[in-house]
Amino acid sequence: MHSKLDCLFCKIVNGDIPAEIVYESDTALAFRDINPQAPIHVLIIPRQHIATINDIADAHQSLVGSLYSAAREIAEAEGIAADGYRAVMNCNAAAGQTVFHIHLHLLGGRPLGWPPG
Amino acid sequence: MHSKLDCLFCKIVNGDIPAEIVYESDTALAFRDINPQAPIHVLIIPRQHIATINDIADAHQSLVGSLYSAAREIAEAEGIAADGYRAVMNCNAAAGQTVFHIHLHLLGGRPLGWPPG
Repeated sequence: MHSKLDCLFCKIVNGDIPAEIVYESDTALAFRDINPQAPIHVLIIPRQHIATINDIADAHQSLVGSLYSAAREIAEAEGIAADGYRAVMNCNAAAGQTVFHIHLHLLGGRPLGWPPG
Repeated sequence: MHSKLDCLFCKIVNGDIPAEIVYESDTALAFRDINPQAPIHVLIIPRQHIATINDIADAHQSLVGSLYSAAREIAEAEGIAADGYRAVMNCNAAAGQTVFHIHLHLLGGRPLGWPPG
């Protein structure tokens, strides 16, 4: 699983740190953000450790795409699919990335303004 | 290519409407947003017509992942890879989706605030 011993999200994948998990698949895991920015705010991560978007290799395309299959399913389960939601991935400091294991923020349950930050 | 006759982005894919194209691959195309919200603001789209995230099938996972390979390459070419950037995909009205052909907004060149809208 290419986990990193010092990675917070790898520890969640491995069950070493608790999280409010809302979705699991062979490739991905999702749990609620502990600092939610909307009524629904879920983080969708690959089980495999990839630090940033800059580290996504072409061989990871299916894996990264699976995060969007997860987003679709979670949005449906949370009742926000029809009204709408936003999927956000930050890369490095200018975007405020704080955990260096890629994660797709899924936000919904309220109108989301523009620009997105 | 499953294009839709009335879809603005399919018309860009087909070359029927001009755009400032910055990236092309077998599966994806990217061009500058005409209402940029950051010094770098590029839209990355699949050549294939998919209306919203809700319409992403599991068979589209590689295709959707290829948008992130594009993001990585564009960020490098635009000189924002190290400082950082944000990738955003909106679904339906609550998120402000206006063109119903999925597109990944790539924003960079300035600090991006939180929450993302």
